Amino acid sequence: MRTRDIYRWMVGLITPRPIAWVSTVSPSGVANLAPFSFFNGVGANPPLVMFCPANGPDGKPKDTLANIHAGGEFVVNLVTEPLAEPMNATSAEFAAEVDEFQICKLSKADSVRVTPPRVHGVAAAMECTLHQAIQLGTGPGGANLVIGRIVYLHVDDGLMDAEGNLMADRLHTIGRLGGAGYSKTTDRFDMPRPPRPQ
Amino acid sequence: MRTRDIYRWMVGLITPRPIAWVSTVSPSGVANLAPFSFFNGVGANPPLVMFCPANGPDGKPKDTLANIHAGGEFVVNLVTEPLAEPMNATSAEFAAEVDEFQICKLSKADSVRVTPPRVHGVAAAMECTLHQAIQLGTGPGGANLVIGRIVYLHVDDGLMDAEGNLMADRLHTIGRLGGAGYSKTTDRFDMPRPPRPQ
Repeated sequence: MRTRDIYRWMVGLITPRPIAWVSTVSPSGVANLAPFSFFNGVGANPPLVMFCPANGPDGKPKDTLANIHAGGEFVVNLVTEPLAEPMNATSAEFAAEVDEFQICKLSKADSVRVTPPRVHGVAAAMECTLHQAIQLGTGPGGANLVIGRIVYLHVDDGLMDAEGNLMADRLHTIGRLGGAGYSKTTDRFDMPRPPRPQ
Repeated sequence: MRTRDIYRWMVGLITPRPIAWVSTVSPSGVANLAPFSFFNGVGANPPLVMFCPANGPDGKPKDTLANIHAGGEFVVNLVTEPLAEPMNATSAEFAAEVDEFQICKLSKADSVRVTPPRVHGVAAAMECTLHQAIQLGTGPGGANLVIGRIVYLHVDDGLMDAEGNLMADRLHTIGRLGGAGYSKTTDRFDMPRPPRPQ
């Protein structure tokens, strides 16, 4: 199978995928913002997340990866329903000198521990420092895996109860499917973990 | 924050997560089956997936990771609605000598390129060989990242049209949320990618 066909099967089958809307800053100070759905947590000890910015069709690393290599920092902004359209707008292949916040009319919010800004108004954002970037492929679509350490976590006050716990039913993240598809997280069910076998 | 609290925030916020239902075989031939939701694709060039089996509360690697270190192979079975309950049943912490297929009454199907069996009746399964296993943490809950290369892909015929393309509306995968929560992928919407800027 060609790389393109393999990719189509992977994104069609591995579903629903959480979306990392990643903000970075270039060495010359230009902010970048782009969505990635090969994204997930890695673990809590230490607190790590990962996402995979594939090389472009020209075989070159995307701006996001180049910025992370240069600056060692990024912010993962979560994507909820009200921000679906703006998130999708930032997925266009803008030139490196374009600030996606500006061109897509999104406001920046200062981060606490890292230089790249957050997206103003997101439900949650994870400020990360680069833990490890692994080049796994070369050429067009070549795979890269970025592991970041969470150094600061922002959560919208409206998502927390009086004890500071997440009210999950208020968090309307969207998931990525294949093609142009997305899923909402409105249709939910619970399955308690089975007890430890005797 | 304690590891446990960090973990709770990560699984509550990074949503919806796809589920890898991973089958392996121990050196003595005992099959193992367990679900992991820190899972995703990595890229198509080369075709790689990742998942993260954290150490147990005793600080030891889970059976799945031990088996992969020993045998270098695993199968990622996808989880769709009809298999939600059996998948959850295999998440109990059974002893290493317990075959989760047997105790949870699941049938095995032979794999084509690897030794670990698939789960009979799944919508799709990815046979994988170990590409790289990275230890990122130690002790209880210590993070591990397993990268596997897809060497064979099974897709249920009923999910494909006459041209062999995926009919995504027939694939009812479930996503993982925080706590005991899961989401269905029934509530969908499309957002075409924006055109390449001029």
